[in-house]
Amino acid sequence: MDDEMTIIVFSNDLDRILASFILSTGAVTMGLKPTMFFTFWGLNVLKKEKATRSPAGWIKKMMSLINRRRADSLKLSQFHMFGIGTAFMKKIMNKSKIPSVPEMITMAKELGVKIIACTTTMEIMGVHQDDLIEEVDNVAGVATYLSTAKLSKVNLFV
Amino acid sequence: MDDEMTIIVFSNDLDRILASFILSTGAVTMGLKPTMFFTFWGLNVLKKEKATRSPAGWIKKMMSLINRRRADSLKLSQFHMFGIGTAFMKKIMNKSKIPSVPEMITMAKELGVKIIACTTTMEIMGVHQDDLIEEVDNVAGVATYLSTAKLSKVNLFV
Amino acid sequence: MDDEMTIIVFSNDLDRILASFILSTGAVTMGLKPTMFFTFWGLNVLKKEKATRSPAGWIKKMMSLINRRRADSLKLSQFHMFGIGTAFMKKIMNKSKIPSVPEMITMAKELGVKIIACTTTMEIMGVHQDDLIEEVDNVAGVATYLSTAKLSKVNLFV
Repeated sequence: MDDEMTIIVFSNDLDRILASFILSTGAVTMGLKPTMFFTFWGLNVLKKEKATRSPAGWIKKMMSLINRRRADSLKLSQFHMFGIGTAFMKKIMNKSKIPSVPEMITMAKELGVKIIACTTTMEIMGVHQDDLIEEVDNVAGVATYLSTAKLSKVNLFV
Repeated sequence: MDDEMTIIVFSNDLDRILASFILSTGAVTMGLKPTMFFTFWGLNVLKKEKATRSPAGWIKKMMSLINRRRADSLKLSQFHMFGIGTAFMKKIMNKSKIPSVPEMITMAKELGVKIIACTTTMEIMGVHQDDLIEEVDNVAGVATYLSTAKLSKVNLFV
Repeated sequence: MDDEMTIIVFSNDLDRILASFILSTGAVTMGLKPTMFFTFWGLNVLKKEKATRSPAGWIKKMMSLINRRRADSLKLSQFHMFGIGTAFMKKIMNKSKIPSVPEMITMAKELGVKIIACTTTMEIMGVHQDDLIEEVDNVAGVATYLSTAKLSKVNLFV
């Protein structure tokens, strides 16, 4: 058993994304090798500001429409309050010297956190690999996740 | 330590249920022995279309009323949008050849995934064992869950 | 690897808090040594009825305002229905002899469950250590969590 750690990032709520990155970057400092698997709504965090190709088919077009949130425009899972609660949170993060989500992605990447995008989600959501930010290490499915999780000391579903 | 895996299925959001089944069926292919513990709202997924007995006492009657969702009528945790988002998701699942939830239960069962219903939840929700679909292997409490989790390589709370 | 177990309590939904305490108290009976890390919204569960000091700065004042929920006034994640669903749940918990959240905290404490408050969340939310109930064993950050999780047989993010 290695010093691996996995985090499934399922949600794109600002608070859960924050928790995921605090855990994964903290893990590096503790000698763990964290891998983050971005799946379902979590995949939105890894999308470029502008998709390069638009998805084929009207269903996928609609799906991509309701999945517009990017790393810099996430909402809180609670107290979003039409943007006021979320704006407060961002202000406080800033005051508390907690980096923004795009900054966290860069930081995690520099520290050696592995960032993987879920292929099943990409298929469902109509997302192509070149729609993803360059910080993504790999696109992979559940088999890759499980083969890492099997060897990991800590596995979390956030 | 065996090649066990546990998933606590706490929610009955369509997306989280999907993720749970993708993980558990994928696990079998990776040589893991997955057990799914359906608890709280997740228990709804295991209920028969029609309850055979109606629960005793008016509080449990009300509780059973607000817990009507079955495996074939789950909603998304986000973008349900009065059914439109959920309908899209189902259409996309269909197009992407992802099975429906009832199909996933059958498939998981055939692959050897163990399906357990939480007794505490059954008591709280006023659910009897004969209200559950036949795919349920066992009804059990937290002690059974923990004794499996202790021996498992991967434990997730979805 | 010891018989440790960790639970990250991220949410303050009544149902998830209940699940966390059922798991941690059950774990003691199964010979495990559980530690609960209360973080983000989960921290609210550990706050005293009345904060002794009010947080400095208007942003933290606002944040503390939207984080008023204490252990005895949590809501369900689903079917809160303006309090009706939550009231039902509490009635049923009472009938099923499931303790209330403040009772669960006391019980968990007596059984030897370790209760830790997340320092990062305290900073973000403007919470001081003397705003926390006396059942809290420790305030600590992600490094403490990870060093325990690394040695644990079961790690859950609830």
